[in-house]
Amino acid sequence: MQEQRLLDSLAFLAKNCNDTPWLGVTRFSWSAADRKARRYISAELEKIGITAHTDGIGNIHGIYKGKTDKPAIVIGSHLDTVKNGGNYDGTYGVAAALEVLRSLYDKNHIPERDIEFIAFAEEEGSNFGNTCLGSKAITGQISENDLKSIRNKDVSAWDLLRQFGLQPQNLIHEQVDPQKILAFLEIHIEQNEILYKKNIPLGIVTAICGMRLYAIRIEGRSDHAASPMLGRADPMAAFAEIAYSMEKLWKDGVLPEDFSCTIGNIRCLPNAGIVIPSQVDFTIDIRHIDIETLEKGWKRIEAMINAVQEKRNIRLTVERLSASGGTAMAEFVKNTFAQSARELNAPVHYLQSGPAHDAASMGHNVPVGLLFVPSIDGLSHCPEENTSPEHLILGAKVFENAVLALAEQK
Amino acid sequence: MQEQRLLDSLAFLAKNCNDTPWLGVTRFSWSAADRKARRYISAELEKIGITAHTDGIGNIHGIYKGKTDKPAIVIGSHLDTVKNGGNYDGTYGVAAALEVLRSLYDKNHIPERDIEFIAFAEEEGSNFGNTCLGSKAITGQISENDLKSIRNKDVSAWDLLRQFGLQPQNLIHEQVDPQKILAFLEIHIEQNEILYKKNIPLGIVTAICGMRLYAIRIEGRSDHAASPMLGRADPMAAFAEIAYSMEKLWKDGVLPEDFSCTIGNIRCLPNAGIVIPSQVDFTIDIRHIDIETLEKGWKRIEAMINAVQEKRNIRLTVERLSASGGTAMAEFVKNTFAQSARELNAPVHYLQSGPAHDAASMGHNVPVGLLFVPSIDGLSHCPEENTSPEHLILGAKVFENAVLALAEQK
Repeated sequence: MQEQRLLDSLAFLAKNCNDTPWLGVTRFSWSAADRKARRYISAELEKIGITAHTDGIGNIHGIYKGKTDKPAIVIGSHLDTVKNGGNYDGTYGVAAALEVLRSLYDKNHIPERDIEFIAFAEEEGSNFGNTCLGSKAITGQISENDLKSIRNKDVSAWDLLRQFGLQPQNLIHEQVDPQKILAFLEIHIEQNEILYKKNIPLGIVTAICGMRLYAIRIEGRSDHAASPMLGRADPMAAFAEIAYSMEKLWKDGVLPEDFSCTIGNIRCLPNAGIVIPSQVDFTIDIRHIDIETLEKGWKRIEAMINAVQEKRNIRLTVERLSASGGTAMAEFVKNTFAQSARELNAPVHYLQSGPAHDAASMGHNVPVGLLFVPSIDGLSHCPEENTSPEHLILGAKVFENAVLALAEQK
Repeated sequence: MQEQRLLDSLAFLAKNCNDTPWLGVTRFSWSAADRKARRYISAELEKIGITAHTDGIGNIHGIYKGKTDKPAIVIGSHLDTVKNGGNYDGTYGVAAALEVLRSLYDKNHIPERDIEFIAFAEEEGSNFGNTCLGSKAITGQISENDLKSIRNKDVSAWDLLRQFGLQPQNLIHEQVDPQKILAFLEIHIEQNEILYKKNIPLGIVTAICGMRLYAIRIEGRSDHAASPMLGRADPMAAFAEIAYSMEKLWKDGVLPEDFSCTIGNIRCLPNAGIVIPSQVDFTIDIRHIDIETLEKGWKRIEAMINAVQEKRNIRLTVERLSASGGTAMAEFVKNTFAQSARELNAPVHYLQSGPAHDAASMGHNVPVGLLFVPSIDGLSHCPEENTSPEHLILGAKVFENAVLALAEQK
């Protein structure tokens, strides 16, 4: 691989394909910055003889043909960022995967198997709050109807895709075929400080946390704060009981020690100090590495929520906004990463991933592996997001060798 | 009194002194609508030979001279409204008090004592969140420094008063002198449904609830929702424990049955579903008829809040935003209202007032009485706020007779 070319690609995408060059990187899928990034990726693939193909949700595919039609190796990550994010989240994995293909082309080497490059769309969920939309859409996890019903205040996902020039109606024919794929490999920044603090350059992910995000609405009856406590239908009091009881379920061990539950978003109407609210909306985010434990945990939380509703004079609705992860990494891919790191004398640490990644969605259908490089100070999703060039290069090399090792499998 | 003149005054103020004629009545103190209302009140006083005087905070005073310099009767209510409020909250008491003076003038009757009319400013606290500012400012409850430090996002109270053309520096010489006042009498809509449901046309208030409004800020440490529960510094979890525990203090009887505590306002940063918040700001409104019980109740709540802070890894600050009420009505004024109602064969009901009123602030210095008329469906602070013309007229008549009875006292 050409180290500088990798770093240049990262710099180009950060500088020239960015809707907020004055503050970090903002490259929402299906935006102006995204269109520039697509042009760049397609042009770079063209340089090495690959004609890019964009599927119905906007994932860019490019196939480096192998000698045989044995199940292929798929590599890649996402091209989109959060608002005012950094240079590396997603983009690093795209650039590293691109560099694998360039490197093969430079050496004029034809591996045993096809290597398919994918730059995924909308992993961050910046447009609609629904994460990993690109990888979910080609692994049977998002239907046409879903795309029509997922919407922000302006537009549905379906209409936005059409307006961008995509053909979402084709997605039904563009699904990942597990028979034709040996494994999906991704490299990504860690977005946590474990590797950075341990000063270990590589992390081999063992599993990606299962995650569910729920929106809960409590409707009560607004009244003057001077009204008696007895007979109130106070949605804020109901919220407090739910939030307090959820944490208590964890403290009491009803939810396992390594279960996470978070209320990060709340809105109250009319939100005046001297008025009992009429309505409180909030979200619950739950995470666990094991999907069954996650679902069981949610059932306990939901039962508690229902019990609160029954004893209080309020109306409660629960909607699932997002679900992802809960994916174990394939043994043979982890081993290939480890072997590849050993060959380059790079220490590795095995760890779980809290945040979701495209590897989690792809893992729904095919064996997957995920490699991490350290995030300086654990920061991500912010302009300060950073990884040292040494780690970026080392990670890409280990990744490349692992991809090649699998692509050469007979 | 002239019934139609009373109703016409109310209609004029609602229609012509209103910054949102398309939706209810909006007449913030020191606004364009307020200026029109001031012009109208001054002109109406002028018609009956009274030259209005406006004090440093914008209360309009007009004195109907009596035969002697015995302590006067003060009557009135507030001229301001909430945003998109109704025709009667405050305005009714102003119009009824004005009608008392007009009626005396019509009869060319000189009572024993002076009757001082006051149209108070900023009872609703619409500009700065600080209620009863007009009545507090002339009863020693708001200092020059307070006016300089009370501010909204645009301006301090002091500067707004000066910009409006008032002389807040004069307030120090414009304080209520308890030696010169026998009693303050106010008539107001109930803003609750007790009278309406009982179908009783008049309420004699026994006491106005004590009220305190506190702003609480909890600062924690933001992190990804995938991070472990253990070791979190989650301000939302701390908020939930505080809100839940406060209600529990009431349920357990630590706070008395007739104590009210309300969380009506909350703000969370950064307010993203998959992010542990860095900060949660909220308000606590507490009410009780007895100020000592109110203060004792707050001490219990504050102790609980401090206990939550001690066991959690968060920083907590508490600021008192507002305090009012906790005022018992004078026995002789209640009796005068009751006698006046009996003479007009009007049934009365004795009740407490949850909401604060200018009578609460005036009660800080002088004996006070407060008369209620029914609010249809209990509604107030909204365009639908309404009281039947029969009740408006009956209330004004009973009020007038009570004022005259006291003004004639030798």
